[in-house]
Amino acid sequence: MTIPPFAPLPASLPATVPFVGPETLQRRMGQDFAARLGANENGFGTSPRALQAMRDEAANIWQYGDATSHDLTQALARHHGVAPGNIIVGEGIDGLLGVLVRLMIAPGDAVVTSDGAYPTFNYHVAGFGGALHKVPYRDDAEDPQALLDLAGQVGARLVYLANPDNPMGSWHKAGVIRQMLEDLPAGSLLVLDEAYAEFAPSEAIPQIAPDDPRVIRMRTFSKAYGMAGARIGYAIGHPELIAGFDRIRNHFGVNRIAQAGALAALQDQDWLAQVQALVAASRDRIADIAVRNGLTALPSATNFVALDTGRDGDYARDLVAALQDLGVFVRMPGVAPLDRCIRVSCAPEDQMAVLEERLPVALAKLG
Amino acid sequence: MTIPPFAPLPASLPATVPFVGPETLQRRMGQDFAARLGANENGFGTSPRALQAMRDEAANIWQYGDATSHDLTQALARHHGVAPGNIIVGEGIDGLLGVLVRLMIAPGDAVVTSDGAYPTFNYHVAGFGGALHKVPYRDDAEDPQALLDLAGQVGARLVYLANPDNPMGSWHKAGVIRQMLEDLPAGSLLVLDEAYAEFAPSEAIPQIAPDDPRVIRMRTFSKAYGMAGARIGYAIGHPELIAGFDRIRNHFGVNRIAQAGALAALQDQDWLAQVQALVAASRDRIADIAVRNGLTALPSATNFVALDTGRDGDYARDLVAALQDLGVFVRMPGVAPLDRCIRVSCAPEDQMAVLEERLPVALAKLG
Repeated sequence: MTIPPFAPLPASLPATVPFVGPETLQRRMGQDFAARLGANENGFGTSPRALQAMRDEAANIWQYGDATSHDLTQALARHHGVAPGNIIVGEGIDGLLGVLVRLMIAPGDAVVTSDGAYPTFNYHVAGFGGALHKVPYRDDAEDPQALLDLAGQVGARLVYLANPDNPMGSWHKAGVIRQMLEDLPAGSLLVLDEAYAEFAPSEAIPQIAPDDPRVIRMRTFSKAYGMAGARIGYAIGHPELIAGFDRIRNHFGVNRIAQAGALAALQDQDWLAQVQALVAASRDRIADIAVRNGLTALPSATNFVALDTGRDGDYARDLVAALQDLGVFVRMPGVAPLDRCIRVSCAPEDQMAVLEERLPVALAKLG
Repeated sequence: MTIPPFAPLPASLPATVPFVGPETLQRRMGQDFAARLGANENGFGTSPRALQAMRDEAANIWQYGDATSHDLTQALARHHGVAPGNIIVGEGIDGLLGVLVRLMIAPGDAVVTSDGAYPTFNYHVAGFGGALHKVPYRDDAEDPQALLDLAGQVGARLVYLANPDNPMGSWHKAGVIRQMLEDLPAGSLLVLDEAYAEFAPSEAIPQIAPDDPRVIRMRTFSKAYGMAGARIGYAIGHPELIAGFDRIRNHFGVNRIAQAGALAALQDQDWLAQVQALVAASRDRIADIAVRNGLTALPSATNFVALDTGRDGDYARDLVAALQDLGVFVRMPGVAPLDRCIRVSCAPEDQMAVLEERLPVALAKLG
């Protein structure tokens, strides 16, 4: 006997996964990484107030979380100067992107992104049968004009842009984003992934009216707030778009401890400021290590730095593998010409010291 | 300007939500419930070892959880005597049901369930465009033969059965479930929701070969393990079916603290046994309160008891409302004739004392 067949759409999908996690790599290698610099996690950690809130909330874990994430939503609305109806809290940006794609994309609908941009967005688009169209990066940055041009050509329902960008760390100024909105083809929605916004200069973050129907902004507690494992993020958008999430989302899907932690983390902006300073210093530290090893650090508005090897994708892939063999977990862009780089996450000095020690060893192995 | 239209399927869905959470009700009332007996949460709480594991893991919340939930999956495989490839960990049964429906159901595909059974399953079926067909309960229990008959008639891709049942608390013996599998129409998959399995007599839990391609079993840490707010559960099934989840699931969607807590909870079977005994006693306590108030407690294999008012749905709805006004959160079945009952969750004595005090007041108000 065999299992009943999958529905045609899932049956057509590959069995591959978007990312192999560091735990899986560690099990394959039979040893733990000495430096965990591959997933843009924030090793400077979570606000102590958030940690305390999470530990306290554990006692209430027998209760489902609030399906509306009411208290957090209210606090986020105040924080951003928007109405609670402009905000939906969900299971990280990954989870929110999945719901958004499901809400907007029917099989065959066109979606535009950049070749080499966030793979998990592409995974969701493929998973709901969307037709993914890509434009190349331009000067190691996502190319707004090319995205708009292609969106117009293919009649894109969604246009994805991360600002700041992952995996290159580049960013556009607020005016560029605002102009994108003005030039966005009718019927397109801009998916503005701001996962790294808190690390960026303020000039990168546009003022956008919360009820602007042309854009949805994605934010997260995974990066600057140091809560990647909590799986909690939020989207800001037009109230009708936000209300659409309620039609299909997993209403009781957000972890109760994550809700408490996110609220406390948001309320500890002093800690955030400290992390921002530490991350900025860590970017410089990574750049310094890079330059002393003949690599070029690209400018970054995120908590990671793309290091240009000056060689090709094969070389960079070998370098990532050599670093992993030496206990240094890093990742790299997936497509040329971005894949001449490796991507190194900011982290505390103990991790940087490991990188400093082992990067030259890895490079030497490659010859 | 208006927002771009939703895709046709989500556009066709109602904006309603499957459940209104107790926090939302509390905000509407302007006061907290004195007794939280409506969501079948487990107020006897989580294993102290699980609580400790969660508090300890908070320090690592800056890291994404293991996308494969490897350690927990291994432990679950040992616990159930199956292979790791038979198990997928996900964001509670709600989350797993959503992925399963997406994996199996194309728009228009037939799904069979019982009228009055778990609404969130129906929500997912509607959300992916499935055609939901229902059979009535029979003697306050789901009716296997009627489910099978209808499944054959409509060519059901999925047949949902909860054993033990929610909202009535009834259960079928293992032999009945095994016979269902034998008689299941070719091409149908039985979705066996065992959320309450740990509260049931062992005779209710069938031995099923883990590689049986006709069934997927759903289990959770939300109920007996007292971790509803953690959003972690798992499914057991044929390896090819389980592997299908990897095509579409949110790979990094499970909270890291939840993973650590679930593993520790699973390893504390002594605590589980204690909870099972407390729940059994609580069922008797609820039944005793009920009978002294002229209500009939239905037999239950779960951590809740359906109390038959001997009247109709309007009366029971009024009783639920009256209890909520008095600070007692309970729920009730949604359809006749089940809706002559209210549903009361097992809970520690302080909550039972509130029920004991206020149930007669609510009944007296109704006259």
